[in-house]
Amino acid sequence: MRIHLQNPADDKLFRFSQPMWDAAVARAPDIGAGHRVSIGETAEDFAAGMAQAEALISDTDTIRALFPVSAPHLQLISVTSAGLDGLAPFGWLPPGVSLLNNSGTHADKAGEFALMAVLMLANRIPEFVTDQRQGLWRKRWGSVLRGRRVTVVGLGSLGGAAAKRFSQFAMHVTGVRTRAEPHPHCAEVVATGDLDRVLATTEFLLLACPLTPATRNLIDRRRLGLLPPGSGLINIGRGALLDQDALCDALEAGALGAAMLDVFVPEPVPPGHRLWTTPNLIMSPHISADDPNTYNADSLDIFLENLRARRDGRKMPNFFDAQRGY
Amino acid sequence: MRIHLQNPADDKLFRFSQPMWDAAVARAPDIGAGHRVSIGETAEDFAAGMAQAEALISDTDTIRALFPVSAPHLQLISVTSAGLDGLAPFGWLPPGVSLLNNSGTHADKAGEFALMAVLMLANRIPEFVTDQRQGLWRKRWGSVLRGRRVTVVGLGSLGGAAAKRFSQFAMHVTGVRTRAEPHPHCAEVVATGDLDRVLATTEFLLLACPLTPATRNLIDRRRLGLLPPGSGLINIGRGALLDQDALCDALEAGALGAAMLDVFVPEPVPPGHRLWTTPNLIMSPHISADDPNTYNADSLDIFLENLRARRDGRKMPNFFDAQRGY
Repeated sequence: MRIHLQNPADDKLFRFSQPMWDAAVARAPDIGAGHRVSIGETAEDFAAGMAQAEALISDTDTIRALFPVSAPHLQLISVTSAGLDGLAPFGWLPPGVSLLNNSGTHADKAGEFALMAVLMLANRIPEFVTDQRQGLWRKRWGSVLRGRRVTVVGLGSLGGAAAKRFSQFAMHVTGVRTRAEPHPHCAEVVATGDLDRVLATTEFLLLACPLTPATRNLIDRRRLGLLPPGSGLINIGRGALLDQDALCDALEAGALGAAMLDVFVPEPVPPGHRLWTTPNLIMSPHISADDPNTYNADSLDIFLENLRARRDGRKMPNFFDAQRGY
Repeated sequence: MRIHLQNPADDKLFRFSQPMWDAAVARAPDIGAGHRVSIGETAEDFAAGMAQAEALISDTDTIRALFPVSAPHLQLISVTSAGLDGLAPFGWLPPGVSLLNNSGTHADKAGEFALMAVLMLANRIPEFVTDQRQGLWRKRWGSVLRGRRVTVVGLGSLGGAAAKRFSQFAMHVTGVRTRAEPHPHCAEVVATGDLDRVLATTEFLLLACPLTPATRNLIDRRRLGLLPPGSGLINIGRGALLDQDALCDALEAGALGAAMLDVFVPEPVPPGHRLWTTPNLIMSPHISADDPNTYNADSLDIFLENLRARRDGRKMPNFFDAQRGY
């Protein structure tokens, strides 16, 4: 197969290299060997690569910048993001070309981040950080995670990894997903339609689902109001899952205990935005799920695993359904 | 045995009550049943209780405020702190009275706090919190804990619980303690005298040892300088283990990556102190190891466990050696 890897133009950390590809092939020689690989960075590299390529591996921003392109042999595009909402609507996708996400790459990092965020809420770190801004020493007591109730919205790669970590700390984990199918790391799973029912007993709410028309503004002002006083919210999915302004109001009013946000509308968050100074809120700049030490190697492993499934006539595990949105 | 429990005068969260005592007795009837228990809060309660008591259970501040006292029958004082440096020098201790700490009560909470702190450093949260103060969106990438090097100074109840958590995340754990005896959750243990040798390869340094003449100012300016650039420091032991001013200098100069401090000199940290505004530093007000939901029940369990050892002629596990300091 002819495979083109197009790197982002201005990113030194998340780049594919020939040694990286060779290492991935060495880990999966049965499916990795024998391909003809090109690696590009400029628009010219991209045009030349796509004239021949049957598969493209690249990131959301690069694809958005460089498509449409003449790609007469293209069959597969593997995008190095888990959520492909940034590529919607999908009219740019050439007919007959399959889209893969790289769901799975983020699991270890996101699972640790989500656990950290819950521990920070349980130990009241956002409140201490707010006190610190004012030079204020005020003891507040936290508690261990054992037996405490966390609700995880979305049980894909991110939410599943988080649920696994939470269950290792003996938390009571409730999952929320499209259909109420059981999950190995959840005590119970409810369908998205039953979300309201579980919010009232939720101590920690983790948003880890894709952004689709069905999940946009899922946690709106009314649902925020269903959470018990003092509860905490974490968003590692997409900013638009949440009514940010209603969250800021709830934190300012003390109706919610604290929040940790990694994703926002818009990104970057502009200077002067009320989020920056909202009390009991800690922000990180959309980094929760990406680990530059492992990201690209994992992405290549996932790509080759999908090639193997395709060769063997199985459904590609990372096939992205543009209609469904995940 | 006649046992007096003296509560702090102004603390609603950490108080002993008769139902709490009864519950502890129900958990350990062989050693808990048949004692005559009094519970007090005022100085008058204390004087009356101590006229009869063979054992006292109370906290550091209360003991410091109310001793000396006439206590003709006293044999045992169980202090609801792990580190008793706040009671030194020990001239106030009546001759023949044994002192117990409550080391063990703090393990679960401190283990989770220490893990949280390392995850926060690994995910660069102190840097984001500093950026947030300035309304600054700046991506910085973190990595998972697997394989990363953490050094734990002190392998008692706190340090041991932390080492266990770190090893669950596949970190490389180096322990530091008085003698270089192996520890089940450390890949290696070095004696305190060899601390310098391990600092240069330490990514995360956790201070979790008691404050004694030997550990006072253990992490001084010179030793801080041995840590590699970008490394992180956590202190959940005692403030005086560390040269705070040198730490602030190192953080301001960017020589160290970040720090999480739960203990300080003095406490409370006064308004206007440079710590409040030092970059890449997150402070919590000496709460890392205390969980009001479990603390008093655990303290009573530990007290009864020590009574059982005494009855059976074994060394009391929480016996505090005032000479040694732990």
